[in-house]
Amino acid sequence: MFNTVAVAGATGAVGRIILQLLEQRRFPAQKFRLLASARSAGQQIDFAGSRITVEELTHDCFHGVDLVIASTPDETAAEFLPSAVRAGCRVIDESGYWRMHPDVALVIPEINPQAALSATGIIASPNCSTTQMVVALKPLHDAARVRRVVVSTYQATSGAGLQGTADLLAGTRAALNSTTYDYKAFRYPIAFNAIPQIGSFKQDGYTSEELKMIFETRKILGDDSIQVCPTCIRIPVSNCHSETINVETERPLSVAEARQLFESFPDIKVLDDPNLGQYPMPSICDGSDDVFVGRIRRDLSHPNCITFWCVSDNL
Amino acid sequence: MFNTVAVAGATGAVGRIILQLLEQRRFPAQKFRLLASARSAGQQIDFAGSRITVEELTHDCFHGVDLVIASTPDETAAEFLPSAVRAGCRVIDESGYWRMHPDVALVIPEINPQAALSATGIIASPNCSTTQMVVALKPLHDAARVRRVVVSTYQATSGAGLQGTADLLAGTRAALNSTTYDYKAFRYPIAFNAIPQIGSFKQDGYTSEELKMIFETRKILGDDSIQVCPTCIRIPVSNCHSETINVETERPLSVAEARQLFESFPDIKVLDDPNLGQYPMPSICDGSDDVFVGRIRRDLSHPNCITFWCVSDNL
Repeated sequence: MFNTVAVAGATGAVGRIILQLLEQRRFPAQKFRLLASARSAGQQIDFAGSRITVEELTHDCFHGVDLVIASTPDETAAEFLPSAVRAGCRVIDESGYWRMHPDVALVIPEINPQAALSATGIIASPNCSTTQMVVALKPLHDAARVRRVVVSTYQATSGAGLQGTADLLAGTRAALNSTTYDYKAFRYPIAFNAIPQIGSFKQDGYTSEELKMIFETRKILGDDSIQVCPTCIRIPVSNCHSETINVETERPLSVAEARQLFESFPDIKVLDDPNLGQYPMPSICDGSDDVFVGRIRRDLSHPNCITFWCVSDNL
Repeated sequence: MFNTVAVAGATGAVGRIILQLLEQRRFPAQKFRLLASARSAGQQIDFAGSRITVEELTHDCFHGVDLVIASTPDETAAEFLPSAVRAGCRVIDESGYWRMHPDVALVIPEINPQAALSATGIIASPNCSTTQMVVALKPLHDAARVRRVVVSTYQATSGAGLQGTADLLAGTRAALNSTTYDYKAFRYPIAFNAIPQIGSFKQDGYTSEELKMIFETRKILGDDSIQVCPTCIRIPVSNCHSETINVETERPLSVAEARQLFESFPDIKVLDDPNLGQYPMPSICDGSDDVFVGRIRRDLSHPNCITFWCVSDNL
């Protein structure tokens, strides 16, 4: 039981989902505080039967807080979360800033909960496109050691926040009516388009989003020898990321064994009966906590590879 | 110069594009005949300054025709095109039915024109998702021998014909207005969704579309040792297919050499300056004959692989 839990970034897309989950799961705390930028401070939010006024996130706001759950832009997390740690808070950070810091635990509760228990400072959660892939890879890695992954993503606009989905809907309406729309979250129109850039370009022609899929995967699975080749693409879907995942294992896995491994893993749901038209799609995975896997098949091009399709609600 | 050219399937999505191209390029023929199913026979179509009445496609309609350009459903091509060959016509078939038949030449004019010149019967053109990939692979294969390709597609609704795009637009309007729409070309709603099935399921859990990408690639490049692992996904884009292509070559290629090879190939246009936000997207490739390549980069996971993004107008 916590005395006081603070949600930082409470008015954002992920912040709202965090509040929903805390409410649904009757998270054990006596008091909840909602923190956000000065722009959002003063808003009133209904939460668990009471109305809470959003406070401004400052360096001095963390006194008396036991747990901070933060979902803010990276630069906000970089600036304010060390103050929370210094104030003695436990900190769970959903931003990208702290994940790869050597003193920070990068945790998916279903995969490496031990890293959270032994953490002294910030506990970070991985990028959404990494999370679903790592959940799907985990049972295969434990059984047969993942050596190389070639992954292509089909990412939803909700990954770019509330403005991302607002852009998709408004931009699509404009396209259907042959009018123009001024996109705010995307560099190019996302309506009826596919944009091969998520994040900013970094080394070797890879984007920040793609590099996260390489380095976060290694950190969470605790194996720096895992090779990942990612391509991250934004598509006009409002929620749920999809991925084609081609995985090479040290020991070859049959399709039957891979399916069995997926089915035995608590957070994976296998939807894979093609003849009945059963496979995961964003339209049916929206709102679920599970990672959905389907189209599991032998990679006819390599004896140690299997290939599959993975969909999960990214929020 | 041909005396008489017949376009079979003249009222379909690809048929209309064929007529546009014949007109734009002042295709040298004295007479054009337009053939379609009984349902469409009698329609009047304006073509090259005259109005032509669509005739019914029958076994006996080919007499006096020099060249048949056919874009019909597979079963129509299966039934009627042998009659055209028997009537002495040259036949170019855009359907999927005849492509892998041993007596049929499978031709991309930019890649293997010699196969068309030596053909005695039907000349087939490959599946649209195969064509753009093979054009992109050809210069790499000639220089360094392609060994294995892992490809994920982001396919437009126009690949499912006029009804596909009609479904996308009407379904999207319905979704925005929270009403329902009865999809005709797709098994599931395509609006704001991604569907991991194109064609029907065949062997080993692969769809017909995916198997085409394996076997047609080998036939066109004339190398049965090329390994391809495809996953074909329909996304809510009206026109232009996109693909992430990961290619392993016998001799490793540097990014600089791969870019040079792409740039030197007549039908490929390289759009690859990430820092300027320059990369191919359906929104900018629509209406072009070129195959667009961008996001060319070293695959950090394998010394003999490069990886890139490829977009082309599929019609």
